[in-house]
Amino acid sequence: MNAPATFPTGAATVDTAPLRRFVTGFAALLDDTEDLDLILERGGALLAQLVARDTWLQEEYAQANPDGYQQYLLHCDSAERFSVISFVWGPGQATPVHDHRVWGLVGVLRGAEKVQSFGLRDRDGALVQLGATRDLLETEVEAIDPRQGDIHRVENAYADRTSISIHVYGANIGAVHRATYRATGEERPFVSGYANTTIPNIWDAARSA
Amino acid sequence: MNAPATFPTGAATVDTAPLRRFVTGFAALLDDTEDLDLILERGGALLAQLVARDTWLQEEYAQANPDGYQQYLLHCDSAERFSVISFVWGPGQATPVHDHRVWGLVGVLRGAEKVQSFGLRDRDGALVQLGATRDLLETEVEAIDPRQGDIHRVENAYADRTSISIHVYGANIGAVHRATYRATGEERPFVSGYANTTIPNIWDAARSA
Ligand SMILES: [Fe+3]
Ligand SMILES: [Fe+3]
Ligand SMILES: [Mg+2]
Repeated sequence: MNAPATFPTGAATVDTAPLRRFVTGFAALLDDTEDLDLILERGGALLAQLVARDTWLQEEYAQANPDGYQQYLLHCDSAERFSVISFVWGPGQATPVHDHRVWGLVGVLRGAEKVQSFGLRDRDGALVQLGATRDLLETEVEAIDPRQGDIHRVENAYADRTSISIHVYGANIGAVHRATYRATGEERPFVSGYANTTIPNIWDAARSA
Repeated sequence: MNAPATFPTGAATVDTAPLRRFVTGFAALLDDTEDLDLILERGGALLAQLVARDTWLQEEYAQANPDGYQQYLLHCDSAERFSVISFVWGPGQATPVHDHRVWGLVGVLRGAEKVQSFGLRDRDGALVQLGATRDLLETEVEAIDPRQGDIHRVENAYADRTSISIHVYGANIGAVHRATYRATGEERPFVSGYANTTIPNIWDAARSA
């Protein structure tokens, strides 16, 4: 288990430095390279550092909603080169089967998730699961690579508590036109949006620990 | 006077598109050029567009505080190349005499400001006002250029109402180590910080008008 926060994670008291360092580090990475393998490798290492400690997420971006999983934007790059999102699953909640159409990285901050990958069958275009359902455990990171297929379904591994993962995508993901999939393989248009109208101010160094 | 907002400027209803377009436009400008004259000229034109209409600022970033002028961060670039701030002056409020140490742009969204520029006298280093006090009126924009001296004092031109200006700086200005000045020219260390712990989510295209 990740160490619990050592101080109350209220808006005014949370340490904004870990997320600020992550964002500036990711910007430097994208300034350095456009090679997707490098972005996923080095970006994955940065995300692993971020989710290794659970001390920096304000409570308002960690709230589950009984109506369904929540996507709280934490940061969007000025040029929409990348966005950072807190995904919050209440007990037993799951996404529909969906795609991304941009690269992504997922790191589990709290709890665990079950992940299923899918492809479309050559013969009739129907949705088929690829490989076994797998667990993504607290502090683990995985990549979403559209070159290798990016259709999946993600579910809270727990029926009795909230799980939270931190996602990074190669776009302002809440505005990307993408799709969910029926069992037949039929696509339905999907624009996820965000649950939050305000995002954390991580830029006030005076408020950092 | 700027046209009043045509719908209530609450968190969920304000049109986020003008500020989002400004941020992505400014990022594109900084990707294009490092020439400070061009940044101030083209960036000034972008800011003039932004403050030409007063329909996009959420109320929570337009609140005066009887204790003094407020600086609400609206956006900070991932690499801290620039930041966008809402400055809110209550009736009669003023800044101390201060410097910036990075380029800046100031555009008046609501009300008007009185601006005084200062230099340090060769003979004894004392603070002296340069030129006359001038008004910066609603929708007007001016540049802060550290190459030409960037010490000034800004005051609400009104004694009976709030004025608001939108500022852009070439850094995460709330974290910049800079100075305020006594009449003798003596510097005092100054890090402004920000008044807000959450900033607007301008990235949810579904919420735009
Ligand atoms: Fe996904
Ligand atoms: Fe100033
Ligand atoms: Mg007006």
